[in-house]
Amino acid sequence: MKLVLDAMGGDFAPAETVAGAVQYAREGNHTVILVGDKTAIRQELEKYDTAGLDLPIVHAPDAVAMDEQPAMAVRRKKNNPMVVGMKLVRDGHADAFCSVGNTGAVLTAGHMVFRRMRGVYRSVLTVAFPNAKGFHVCGDVGANTDCKPEWLVQWAHMLAIYAKPLLDIQEPRVAFLANGEEVGKGNQLIKTAQVLMAQRNHLNYIGVVEPKEMMAGQADVVVTDGFTGNMIVKQSEAVANFIFQTLKEELMARSRSKIGAALARPAFQSSLDRLTNKEHGAGLLLGLNGLVTVAHGRSKRESIYYALKTTGRLVEADVLEETRHKIETLLHLQASLQEKAS
Amino acid sequence: MKLVLDAMGGDFAPAETVAGAVQYAREGNHTVILVGDKTAIRQELEKYDTAGLDLPIVHAPDAVAMDEQPAMAVRRKKNNPMVVGMKLVRDGHADAFCSVGNTGAVLTAGHMVFRRMRGVYRSVLTVAFPNAKGFHVCGDVGANTDCKPEWLVQWAHMLAIYAKPLLDIQEPRVAFLANGEEVGKGNQLIKTAQVLMAQRNHLNYIGVVEPKEMMAGQADVVVTDGFTGNMIVKQSEAVANFIFQTLKEELMARSRSKIGAALARPAFQSSLDRLTNKEHGAGLLLGLNGLVTVAHGRSKRESIYYALKTTGRLVEADVLEETRHKIETLLHLQASLQEKAS
Repeated sequence: MKLVLDAMGGDFAPAETVAGAVQYAREGNHTVILVGDKTAIRQELEKYDTAGLDLPIVHAPDAVAMDEQPAMAVRRKKNNPMVVGMKLVRDGHADAFCSVGNTGAVLTAGHMVFRRMRGVYRSVLTVAFPNAKGFHVCGDVGANTDCKPEWLVQWAHMLAIYAKPLLDIQEPRVAFLANGEEVGKGNQLIKTAQVLMAQRNHLNYIGVVEPKEMMAGQADVVVTDGFTGNMIVKQSEAVANFIFQTLKEELMARSRSKIGAALARPAFQSSLDRLTNKEHGAGLLLGLNGLVTVAHGRSKRESIYYALKTTGRLVEADVLEETRHKIETLLHLQASLQEKAS
Repeated sequence: MKLVLDAMGGDFAPAETVAGAVQYAREGNHTVILVGDKTAIRQELEKYDTAGLDLPIVHAPDAVAMDEQPAMAVRRKKNNPMVVGMKLVRDGHADAFCSVGNTGAVLTAGHMVFRRMRGVYRSVLTVAFPNAKGFHVCGDVGANTDCKPEWLVQWAHMLAIYAKPLLDIQEPRVAFLANGEEVGKGNQLIKTAQVLMAQRNHLNYIGVVEPKEMMAGQADVVVTDGFTGNMIVKQSEAVANFIFQTLKEELMARSRSKIGAALARPAFQSSLDRLTNKEHGAGLLLGLNGLVTVAHGRSKRESIYYALKTTGRLVEADVLEETRHKIETLLHLQASLQEKAS
């Protein structure tokens, strides 16, 4: 396994990115190519015993400044870690690229370097989301604000392929997200997508779910447009913050509950851990000719380690090849349906 | 003040609806006309000392059965409490109608009885939503799944009128909901709505907010399409349930934290109260020739009381007349802009 990590990505780079890479390399004799400012990365590496570990550095000095628009900067600065790192994968020097943070920049660089996979309408951004029973995979969560129904149907198939190794299940239950659980619910986009889903080609399609069912864990793959998906993810974070803030204020307002809160601290921490989703925290950018994962910009070493682990699992499952195959099957099927119809 | 209450609406009718009405009538010498099954309502009324209170009953025996599609039932059964109650308002016997639960039925009955206000593109469903600083008004939260940008602009003006008495502020800050806080963020709908907002006509328009800012209380009125709005409301409820369920499980899994949880119970209850939003729990259906509020289907007496109180405050502020006036001003403005442009 040979992964590339954007060592300069996220809020705590390169200290936390390098630490996460060391942990992952140590675990399974994996190679992690660290891309970024070589001096800064070397300084971090020196803090660890890396004897016997394969952690090569590839110098990519063009940092994206705080005041730059990241997608623009990626285009202009060809020696930035994202573009350099992705090229290593494209040119066969590594299996996959793990980025940290800035989704806009990842999208731009990913399309520049890898190009979209043949037959894929649009690339799609996905995340694993905690629910009452475990996790589900949700997408699009922000790559495309205005979508077409046939894109959603294609994404349903693509997400199902990635969900298998990611959630470790054989037949992921696939659903569209809607404002109700009955057939025919949704806006025009979701209504049409439901009709198109007739050509479901061996997908375990279960119809539409509303947020309540999604959070109850009734689907493994939840497909939506990138505007709604992005809002759902952001609103969930905002509500969670709001609730914990409110709880904290109320707990601190009373001396009895202050004691209660102190006693209950480990339980609070466990709840937070289940919500913050460290283990499945990395998103995926699907539909390109290269495997790209996206760890949260606020990732610390543990999350980076899990992001690399997720990336590795996807490489092992050869999801890219399976996606290529599925897209071609769908295109053939569509062509033969159109032939029959005409 | 003369309000009409659907005494048969919601999960706990008529016991809780009647109890809420008694409390409201007692407080300010208000009249509440109770519409529904007269025997059932009378039985509930007998439980209270109603001497000197004005709580007339209007018999409307056509109950909507559990297995009926509510919107259909409202159309077929002309003597159901919703239609009968709204007609009392339409015909001048009362000032406003307060319904409980089933939004689909309220929408159908409201349009049947009141008709849409002249110049209003579409009616809009709104709720008051808790945030870190208090409350904001959000709409559309479910009346229209597929929207046009000019509808959103009109709703911005309409919601601002209602937000004034509802939140007790003079110049509500109005924003569109989007997937980022920069100008130009959003899907095509929100982007175009931002451009159209140029004709903002004395509105305190502050641009777009994303969920984080919305939950931080940076806007008083948040405008969105009815699909996104409905999803935001439903996802918020689902996430809140998920968090409290997770917390409960984690707290009960440890004996120390069990004690902690017991000590912290009042703080938990306060947090829940802030979230469940009893005092602002009633939604509004705007854009009809009649004032219609919608209390949550799970409302108990206290929430019914507050729903009636909210309804009364809107009657006092004469929001219906102000809306009529604003819509006409906007139409005039639009016409004169078009004249200039041609």
